[in-house]
Amino acid sequence: MMKLAKKDILGIADMSVDEINLILETAESFLEISMRDIKKVPTLRGKSIINLFYEASTRTRTSFEIAGKRLSADTINISASTSSTVKGETLIDTARNLEAMNPDIIVLRHSAAGAPHMLASLVKQSIINAGDGAHEHPSQALLDMMTIREKKGKIAGLKVALVGDILHSRVARSNIYGLSKMGAEVVVAGPATMLPRDIEKMGVAAFTKIEDAIADADVVMMLRIQLERQKQNIFPSLREYAQHYCLTRKNIKLARPDAIVMHPGPMNRGVEISPDIADDPGISVILDQVNNGVAVRMALLYLLSGGNE
Amino acid sequence: MMKLAKKDILGIADMSVDEINLILETAESFLEISMRDIKKVPTLRGKSIINLFYEASTRTRTSFEIAGKRLSADTINISASTSSTVKGETLIDTARNLEAMNPDIIVLRHSAAGAPHMLASLVKQSIINAGDGAHEHPSQALLDMMTIREKKGKIAGLKVALVGDILHSRVARSNIYGLSKMGAEVVVAGPATMLPRDIEKMGVAAFTKIEDAIADADVVMMLRIQLERQKQNIFPSLREYAQHYCLTRKNIKLARPDAIVMHPGPMNRGVEISPDIADDPGISVILDQVNNGVAVRMALLYLLSGGNE
Amino acid sequence: MMKLAKKDILGIADMSVDEINLILETAESFLEISMRDIKKVPTLRGKSIINLFYEASTRTRTSFEIAGKRLSADTINISASTSSTVKGETLIDTARNLEAMNPDIIVLRHSAAGAPHMLASLVKQSIINAGDGAHEHPSQALLDMMTIREKKGKIAGLKVALVGDILHSRVARSNIYGLSKMGAEVVVAGPATMLPRDIEKMGVAAFTKIEDAIADADVVMMLRIQLERQKQNIFPSLREYAQHYCLTRKNIKLARPDAIVMHPGPMNRGVEISPDIADDPGISVILDQVNNGVAVRMALLYLLSGGNE
Repeated sequence: MMKLAKKDILGIADMSVDEINLILETAESFLEISMRDIKKVPTLRGKSIINLFYEASTRTRTSFEIAGKRLSADTINISASTSSTVKGETLIDTARNLEAMNPDIIVLRHSAAGAPHMLASLVKQSIINAGDGAHEHPSQALLDMMTIREKKGKIAGLKVALVGDILHSRVARSNIYGLSKMGAEVVVAGPATMLPRDIEKMGVAAFTKIEDAIADADVVMMLRIQLERQKQNIFPSLREYAQHYCLTRKNIKLARPDAIVMHPGPMNRGVEISPDIADDPGISVILDQVNNGVAVRMALLYLLSGGNE
Repeated sequence: MMKLAKKDILGIADMSVDEINLILETAESFLEISMRDIKKVPTLRGKSIINLFYEASTRTRTSFEIAGKRLSADTINISASTSSTVKGETLIDTARNLEAMNPDIIVLRHSAAGAPHMLASLVKQSIINAGDGAHEHPSQALLDMMTIREKKGKIAGLKVALVGDILHSRVARSNIYGLSKMGAEVVVAGPATMLPRDIEKMGVAAFTKIEDAIADADVVMMLRIQLERQKQNIFPSLREYAQHYCLTRKNIKLARPDAIVMHPGPMNRGVEISPDIADDPGISVILDQVNNGVAVRMALLYLLSGGNE
Repeated sequence: MMKLAKKDILGIADMSVDEINLILETAESFLEISMRDIKKVPTLRGKSIINLFYEASTRTRTSFEIAGKRLSADTINISASTSSTVKGETLIDTARNLEAMNPDIIVLRHSAAGAPHMLASLVKQSIINAGDGAHEHPSQALLDMMTIREKKGKIAGLKVALVGDILHSRVARSNIYGLSKMGAEVVVAGPATMLPRDIEKMGVAAFTKIEDAIADADVVMMLRIQLERQKQNIFPSLREYAQHYCLTRKNIKLARPDAIVMHPGPMNRGVEISPDIADDPGISVILDQVNNGVAVRMALLYLLSGGNE
């Protein structure tokens, strides 16, 4: 088996197709561990993994923690609210201190784009970017690609529509990089204020009407409207947003008959996605994404530990 | 050994006497594990238990966490303050997401009565209710029954007095169900504003004077006054409450000479219980309750995992 | 090997030179475990260690948690913000409740001086003081002594200068006790308002000029200015403090040419220490302190568990 020649997982932008394929194949092979009666293998026994989260998170932190524990690693959680950041220490000093405690991998979520990259250049441990500002969220894009491949048998040649706040979404950014590399046609839709100006440079067609994006799509990926950003007035009202961009029984008909619907969660039901779509097991693969997420994170922890050497 | 034919532990109301006996006997057999030098058995190795707490808790969360670890399960804590509930996700979506990560058991504490029941109907995992609003707290009632049986050799035929805010107490409700089923005579006392209107329908005699309830009682269970609810003005003042309802050296004399005193904790010393009673090892079995709590939770985790199949 | 004849680690004040040496030697022997590929030994399997932190902490809590996990103990974290202290329970009742769950060791950080001592007298478990108010922080002083011995080959006969807010520093207090016992000459410097009145009674020379303290020092230990205490107006401004007490390229020249610089962290760069000093691997041993911290805590957990009986 190929070895992952990376110290860190910082983003999809700097990942090769071979590396993506290696991670997805490793994740696929790990999928069955979580289905066993005894969901634990000794692979990473004696390894220490620190989840360093400067932003609140249930699913991503829990997913990494479960992934680590199923590989028998020791997992240590640090959340910013209870950390010495209260005392004003810089991220750099926190990281150097953690480094000196000799963990093997640090999983970092931070509100500043580039924070994991800075850490990766400073400490000897492997860094996994679990979301940095509006920049990248590579493990999410990997689990999304894994889910598409699982449901569609391939990624190349598919039309994937991303709908919502493309500008502020690290999920969108990582998926655009990844899906394009893997040969998919990526289109996006959202209010003009939520589309990056240079989006076409990423090889992506952009629309302000959801209908234009999801027409004939094989995959429709709805993004979460970040309610906490509403105060910035980048869109007039949730009601108006939902009127134009909510995925519904009506507009989903524009997509291919066998289209799948994805969402990175947490969902705002009735805002960006109508509940009957979200809960329709014939269309929605949202919970498959979560399930695959544990396997993708197991693969990342395993590959960064040199587990396949 | 009998098998527990339940997917979930939601309350004592829907539990049979045989089920209660099975749980208590299993817990009794686990008691000695916590006394060993190496307090760990491999029984639940490879099982994942999520403690999902939407209300602050030291003792219950810690008790479940220790119970899980002593059985070699992996335990994952999620507290609402650091969770994606910040982002407005519904409990249902959180639960479905956790389900997709394939844990074995979810231990839920939630301020809404019925929250664990809703979850149990939606997800395939076993749900343990660790307290839902003012509704039920079954593991507390089970550890209380275990403690009574340990100290008195039986439950049937005993007179048990519950004193305090019966109306808002999930501990009272679960104990009333359980102790009645097990054949005890249950009486309650508290200010009229803290007594449920239909309390007699539960087969329970209700008094507004503590003296009337604890007279000839074998067991006196004092409930915590929830200071955080004081703003609702359901009782005039702590001082006045204490004057009428505090368990003291004086009024305890009304109970049977060999009566035991219980409290689910955390105690408000000097409000509902006088410190010298709480700390008298000849009367108070409060710390036995805590000790038995770990064993009861081990039993629940074990039985729900089909450990005795 | 000698046995540690103590139930608790409460402070350096009541520790003998033999005990300090035993702990340091044990820690030195544990150092290599954290360098292994599989950083885990089964020594404390089945032991439960509770980290009970009433003050925010990243490094100390993480260090104890990693130490416990590397010895295969089960570690349970309780932080005050999510604990039943919200409900007004006393520390004593919390401790007695934890005791009843049969952990082996409770690691306590508390804002009240003496809190660990009170606990130690009440519960049968071993208590480790992880910082009590402005009183003691023994594991910090032990890792400091370990680092000095590692870098200098000895402690006796060295001149060690502590600079900063001596009055409010538990790190300073524990180090003064420890370094004096081990035969070092300890001097301190800080603004007059930050020096204890009876400091000379501790056998320590005190200065208000940093230059007087660090002259010919073998070790310069800078203390953190606690920004959160600034409101108390014990010093006029950070800028003024830095002007007089910051360790810089210039004043460090007064120390011995082979002097080492220490800091317990978290650092306020540019306030008490200039960044180029902090980051100079030829002078600064700050990250060695952190690394040794895990080993010292492993040693404490091991020795208190009777591991060397």
